[in-house]
Amino acid sequence: MTHPEYNPSKEDRMEDQAKPVEPSSLRRAWARFLKGVSYFSGDMEVFGKWMEKRFFLLQLLDWVLRGAAQVMFVNNPLSGLIIFAGLILQNYWWALNGFVGTLFATISALILQQSRGAIAAGLYGYNGILVGLLMAVFSNAGDWYWWLLLPNIFMSMMCPIVSSALASINSRWDLPVFTLPFNILVCLHMVATGHYNHHFPQVLIQPRSELPNITWSEIDVAKLFRSIPVGIGQVYGCDNPWTGGTFIISLFISSPITCAHAILGSAAGMVSGLALSAPFEDIYFGLWGYNCVLACIAIGGMFYALTWQVHLLAITCAFFCAYLGSAIANVMSRFGLPSCTWPFCLSALTFLLLTTGTKRIFKLPLAKVTYPEKNLAFYWRLKKQEKAEKALKERKESEEREEQLKAMNEEVILNEKEQLKLELQRMEEEKKEKALSTTPSKDSKKGG
Amino acid sequence: MTHPEYNPSKEDRMEDQAKPVEPSSLRRAWARFLKGVSYFSGDMEVFGKWMEKRFFLLQLLDWVLRGAAQVMFVNNPLSGLIIFAGLILQNYWWALNGFVGTLFATISALILQQSRGAIAAGLYGYNGILVGLLMAVFSNAGDWYWWLLLPNIFMSMMCPIVSSALASINSRWDLPVFTLPFNILVCLHMVATGHYNHHFPQVLIQPRSELPNITWSEIDVAKLFRSIPVGIGQVYGCDNPWTGGTFIISLFISSPITCAHAILGSAAGMVSGLALSAPFEDIYFGLWGYNCVLACIAIGGMFYALTWQVHLLAITCAFFCAYLGSAIANVMSRFGLPSCTWPFCLSALTFLLLTTGTKRIFKLPLAKVTYPEKNLAFYWRLKKQEKAEKALKERKESEEREEQLKAMNEEVILNEKEQLKLELQRMEEEKKEKALSTTPSKDSKKGG
Amino acid sequence: MTHPEYNPSKEDRMEDQAKPVEPSSLRRAWARFLKGVSYFSGDMEVFGKWMEKRFFLLQLLDWVLRGAAQVMFVNNPLSGLIIFAGLILQNYWWALNGFVGTLFATISALILQQSRGAIAAGLYGYNGILVGLLMAVFSNAGDWYWWLLLPNIFMSMMCPIVSSALASINSRWDLPVFTLPFNILVCLHMVATGHYNHHFPQVLIQPRSELPNITWSEIDVAKLFRSIPVGIGQVYGCDNPWTGGTFIISLFISSPITCAHAILGSAAGMVSGLALSAPFEDIYFGLWGYNCVLACIAIGGMFYALTWQVHLLAITCAFFCAYLGSAIANVMSRFGLPSCTWPFCLSALTFLLLTTGTKRIFKLPLAKVTYPEKNLAFYWRLKKQEKAEKALKERKESEEREEQLKAMNEEVILNEKEQLKLELQRMEEEKKEKALSTTPSKDSKKGG
Repeated sequence: MTHPEYNPSKEDRMEDQAKPVEPSSLRRAWARFLKGVSYFSGDMEVFGKWMEKRFFLLQLLDWVLRGAAQVMFVNNPLSGLIIFAGLILQNYWWALNGFVGTLFATISALILQQSRGAIAAGLYGYNGILVGLLMAVFSNAGDWYWWLLLPNIFMSMMCPIVSSALASINSRWDLPVFTLPFNILVCLHMVATGHYNHHFPQVLIQPRSELPNITWSEIDVAKLFRSIPVGIGQVYGCDNPWTGGTFIISLFISSPITCAHAILGSAAGMVSGLALSAPFEDIYFGLWGYNCVLACIAIGGMFYALTWQVHLLAITCAFFCAYLGSAIANVMSRFGLPSCTWPFCLSALTFLLLTTGTKRIFKLPLAKVTYPEKNLAFYWRLKKQEKAEKALKERKESEEREEQLKAMNEEVILNEKEQLKLELQRMEEEKKEKALSTTPSKDSKKGG
Repeated sequence: MTHPEYNPSKEDRMEDQAKPVEPSSLRRAWARFLKGVSYFSGDMEVFGKWMEKRFFLLQLLDWVLRGAAQVMFVNNPLSGLIIFAGLILQNYWWALNGFVGTLFATISALILQQSRGAIAAGLYGYNGILVGLLMAVFSNAGDWYWWLLLPNIFMSMMCPIVSSALASINSRWDLPVFTLPFNILVCLHMVATGHYNHHFPQVLIQPRSELPNITWSEIDVAKLFRSIPVGIGQVYGCDNPWTGGTFIISLFISSPITCAHAILGSAAGMVSGLALSAPFEDIYFGLWGYNCVLACIAIGGMFYALTWQVHLLAITCAFFCAYLGSAIANVMSRFGLPSCTWPFCLSALTFLLLTTGTKRIFKLPLAKVTYPEKNLAFYWRLKKQEKAEKALKERKESEEREEQLKAMNEEVILNEKEQLKLELQRMEEEKKEKALSTTPSKDSKKGG
Repeated sequence: MTHPEYNPSKEDRMEDQAKPVEPSSLRRAWARFLKGVSYFSGDMEVFGKWMEKRFFLLQLLDWVLRGAAQVMFVNNPLSGLIIFAGLILQNYWWALNGFVGTLFATISALILQQSRGAIAAGLYGYNGILVGLLMAVFSNAGDWYWWLLLPNIFMSMMCPIVSSALASINSRWDLPVFTLPFNILVCLHMVATGHYNHHFPQVLIQPRSELPNITWSEIDVAKLFRSIPVGIGQVYGCDNPWTGGTFIISLFISSPITCAHAILGSAAGMVSGLALSAPFEDIYFGLWGYNCVLACIAIGGMFYALTWQVHLLAITCAFFCAYLGSAIANVMSRFGLPSCTWPFCLSALTFLLLTTGTKRIFKLPLAKVTYPEKNLAFYWRLKKQEKAEKALKERKESEEREEQLKAMNEEVILNEKEQLKLELQRMEEEKKEKALSTTPSKDSKKGG
């Protein structure tokens, strides 16, 4: 969901230059380690550039893997690979559907000649993987019902069209489309067919008419803590805590800030569920977490530069998202629909539209968004630049003031000299006049 | 909902200047009365400016009172005070919740560093009072259920965020956000919890499956007329006609035009209810009125300059709003939700987006909106200016035309003179020629 | 739905000029036939211009007829007349309501001083005819229930207001409003009253809880093929295949491309219905077709210039629209509402918001949209112009390059000549030197 920037990471190069200056072997090892890490952390730019010259199918695989990770705003093929591993751990059939979805969404984007940079960053794949996965998850026809691949492929191929259309609208406010295309298309498929359809039946989702009594003594603290990784897994519709754990690893590889906010978001969702007296089963199942995970990542460092104020805003957004999630789940269940990631999309968009007077909440221009660490570096550079400019301006101003002062002083001195000269002249003239006045000639020349 | 303009009302100053010219004591008294009225009618600018130098908590109180009145587009702390009195008349607990909502919404706006002018005009408070009030009104837990203050404070503090986000969108069309944040947040809270929630149960609202038979003989005309003030009271969720009456007074203090349109709107809603065969109880209860009240105020002089055409448009909008209100109430009841003020927001936004070829329907720029009387003065000044410019242009043009005519005349005269001269010359020459022709010399000089 | 362009068709004039050059009688007859056809095909511009000087009521009739045809994007009074004939064939009462709706929508647009060109093109009438027709179709009070004319007139007169408001929004993305005002207003009326209303009862529409078993042997191929014209008829809510056939004729008169896409769209809808296992009755009744008809026309040549890529896009849009139609019908039925033409509006808007890198998918500026054939001519002219400009640029560039080459060559030649001269000079000097060296004088002059 981030636009790639193709300038090689300057930090690495600077380290290279710094090495010969400081020859301590420990530092050298550390620098080498950092350099090694930089190859597969972040958005793996070097790998992406290296891939550009490879065989097309390999490139496509890179894009598909990046697409799989972009659901969590991660532009990293290694994370994508780990995520696919987690999906296979959960269910083979779902993993296959997810792969097919990502693949056909990317192909469709190629056919429609969308921006190559965006395709290469996986920005056309992440809706595809969700469409594929969730259509399999919510299908009532059981696993390995091969006909399902037909609507799966059709809907995946519609992803770039809906993405492009939504981007035309959202770009007016410099907003991303998030997973809105996925939400729209999966809801469309589910409500168009429904539970009683003969070809593509969906699982039965019904509105709750009565909530079970909650007895706080029955709470299972272990399950409650387990709900945090499960919540992260539910972003991809998976309830296996190990799958969720795998996803946490894949996030950590690319960006520790993202990983921390994912865990925070999931915890915030769990707490909200308890506060709004949700059934414990829903909380254990991670249904209160996954939207908050995404919302917390998006606000906490991805689209805003991470400061303390933004960190608090991200947590507020997670709580708001949990509230909204409960509301949307109740509304959608009337139509036999799950809430998908609508709550995340709507709450994150609301918080991104916010305008404040403080400079500490800085929204990055969409074209400059990469991953939290790099965003932060961008923000710091910008601030430094501003400071430097301000300092320069101030120095200039003070210099100008000094010069003005000097000039004024000089002028004053000059004036004084002039006045002295004039005084002297006058005195001399007066002398002459006096001398002349004794001699009566040339009196008519002076006119007062 | 109006942006304040900080230029002291020129009318008053002009009156001061006008006084010495006309010394009649009656006129002087009248002017003094007008000056006195100007201190607490309209938007109480003088008071607002005076407040700027007071203690912060007093200022905050001013903002909260203005916020309470801004629900009806009134930027006046005295009206706000009367409105709070009306609320206390209705229900202590509701009034407390409303106050807490306004207070925390304003505080949240201060924390988020929103525009100080907008905060001081109460533009961040009016959604807060509605959120607080209506959450108490629709709570099924009974009065004095103190836990309710928790979601109340959370939702009130979300108001400025949602307001700011919506303003980012609506400002593209120079539209206000109206009470959309309140609608969104209260519906969110109600549908997130629902009737069966153990912590925050809501009143049960169900869709109507069958309407009772309507027998026109059973109609109670007194109750029908009483529904007009009740409709105005329902803007704040109050069904007490005396509370509604108090609100009418508070409107009249600030702006008689607003007051008249509020009554007209409530009446239009009542008539629409009868036309669409609504149950009499709903009409008596003011449910058909409150949206029309707000819509009629908004169109009739607040965001359009009041002319006869705009007055008719406002009444049309009130009828459309009543229709829409019935529709939205039916849709929302499926989710156990009340219609809130969605109908008002949607109908008023539709009528504000209207573009026509006539100059008599003049939409004020959002930054210039204050209150109907002042808006009208602004419109008249603008028209006068245009007229003056036009007259000036015309005079210039006519002068130019006259000059051209004069110049042309002069030219004509000159030409005629020239021609006469030429004629004379010719005649003289001819004479000479004749004279010369008699003398045979110099014939070769003339070449025909 | 198209903005009229008031420049007389140049093709006709060119034919007139071309005639004397080629005097073959067959060609002359063909040209005359084409000229004759041009008078009542396309948008009948000549007739429209001729009408401008007629009596106002005749003009109004022209606008009403054009409005009736604009539902299908056809700006042609003859098509409108045939459509009214088809409606009368279906049901007198419906036809009357449709006429009243178109008439009052047009009158309301005149009162609100909307763009005269748009009114004359029927752009304010087409929502009116649909509002009038469908309110009669979905009324449960039976035919000739005269009270229905009251809400009919009110809602028709609201059409220009809603149209104008939506246009203010959609124009930001250069999008048309399609039949959104109709959808909004009819749904508003239906849900505001409902099935149990005493004044204006609506037909009962309920969500489907169980689908009948589908046995492929029971399929009726004749009915399946008849569903194609029925689908076109359902655009106006008519289930009579003859009415649908009449509509096909009216489309063919104005624009064969529109006609072909209408039939294709209806067929795509029918196939989608079978794929999603819809009940056969729904398919036979044309419910799967009418949205696809409109979507296919809109994308296939009306708002995009028709190329092969756009043709494929139009068919994709028709399939997507059918999917969406099923989804929306299921959602709306929960509120007792039909799906109206929401699916068409939403799918066509999505496909019009699409941005691609290819030049073969060219979206016409909204002000230039007329009818597919003329749009295509506009597109070709534009392409030719671009080509010409490119060729001119290339020729200029190549000329410049040649000149540069020439200049360079000349320079080279000059240089060579210079060098030769210099060489000669040097040689001569050397000769002289040699000669001089024999004579010992002036040796000191040369300094190496």
